[in-house]
Amino acid sequence: MNFFNSLRKLRGGKMENIIFVEPNNIEKRSFEIIQEEMGEIQIEKEIEPIVKRVIHTSADFDYLDNMCFSKNAVKKAKDALKNGATIVTDTNMAYSGINKKAAAKYGVNIQCFMADEDVAKEAAMRGETRAAVSMERAAMIKGPLIFAVGNAPTALIKLYEMIKSGMINPEVIIGVPVGFVNVVEAKELIMSLNNVEYIVARGRKGGSNIAASICNALLYNI
Amino acid sequence: MNFFNSLRKLRGGKMENIIFVEPNNIEKRSFEIIQEEMGEIQIEKEIEPIVKRVIHTSADFDYLDNMCFSKNAVKKAKDALKNGATIVTDTNMAYSGINKKAAAKYGVNIQCFMADEDVAKEAAMRGETRAAVSMERAAMIKGPLIFAVGNAPTALIKLYEMIKSGMINPEVIIGVPVGFVNVVEAKELIMSLNNVEYIVARGRKGGSNIAASICNALLYNI
Repeated sequence: MNFFNSLRKLRGGKMENIIFVEPNNIEKRSFEIIQEEMGEIQIEKEIEPIVKRVIHTSADFDYLDNMCFSKNAVKKAKDALKNGATIVTDTNMAYSGINKKAAAKYGVNIQCFMADEDVAKEAAMRGETRAAVSMERAAMIKGPLIFAVGNAPTALIKLYEMIKSGMINPEVIIGVPVGFVNVVEAKELIMSLNNVEYIVARGRKGGSNIAASICNALLYNI
Repeated sequence: MNFFNSLRKLRGGKMENIIFVEPNNIEKRSFEIIQEEMGEIQIEKEIEPIVKRVIHTSADFDYLDNMCFSKNAVKKAKDALKNGATIVTDTNMAYSGINKKAAAKYGVNIQCFMADEDVAKEAAMRGETRAAVSMERAAMIKGPLIFAVGNAPTALIKLYEMIKSGMINPEVIIGVPVGFVNVVEAKELIMSLNNVEYIVARGRKGGSNIAASICNALLYNI
């Protein structure tokens, strides 16, 4: 295949690990390598495809330890997706990363309010972040909600406040913001709630790509 | 501020590290924390804002070691951006992550062909990846080109082939795909070229978010 010519040229040199794999099988082979490197580590069947897809997205095995799931999170997320829940993201990157065809199969709608001009205006006026204000916008959506937060801890804090005050009752919160300022604490805040299912990457790590990959893993394994 | 009420409630408990920071200052404080944790480590002035922004995006200090810059990569990238270069990404996520206002300031155009139906068709017909075919599409764009590859090693391999055959002569290649199959090798391939400037995250790590954050770091520090 044409596709491998350039890699083949370098074979026998320093490039001994080249894998000759058809485009369609790259993902399958990636998951096999992840499994090989996990060795003896066992993951619960239900959460395994999610953790593996996050590692696939990040090449970071820290997520083997980081990922926290509340007891019914995966089941509840899948049920909600099957029933055409709305996924709300806190970035356009996470929005972009969610597989639209997989979502459409179940009538799942994906929303992100971050780029709305009036969200920016209101946030500036109230001294809030755009992410926090966009969570308030999302609270007005009818039907079951899944939040996928990959960037802004302030979005998680806003969700916590709205849940505490009874304003919203989301199916699941995917809480994987990344960063250094109040990220760790905002995730712990979500996990301190008793009445909300969550999928959280404990600690500083996460990201819009991680949020999207968790949504995709759920959609692919319904 | 309203914004901190929920976090404040938890203060004095397990949450001693909460940082009370205005929304506008979160990024600034994040970069200060990154600097604090880097301690004595010194980075070259020109590449420092790029490496730090990648760490800011990933919360992963591995990038302190991973990031490789060819000698004139940063200068050439900034010059190209100032002159309204086109940035070509290999995912819609990377496309989404690049700051459009910052790009517009310099007349920088951002393109991604991954979602084009005819790219998918041609890729399937030829047994190539969509990423590889979309790089061929990009080769037809007039004017200076910067490639920002955060996902597909096959995109980097295609770029290598097109450069070797004299089809393209990009200003800079940002080569930060993530993953397990030929990712490491494809990056080395790009770094083996003598006549192309590159910014590469050596090893398996990278991602669309990393590609976007490198583009943004360049745009913010022109």
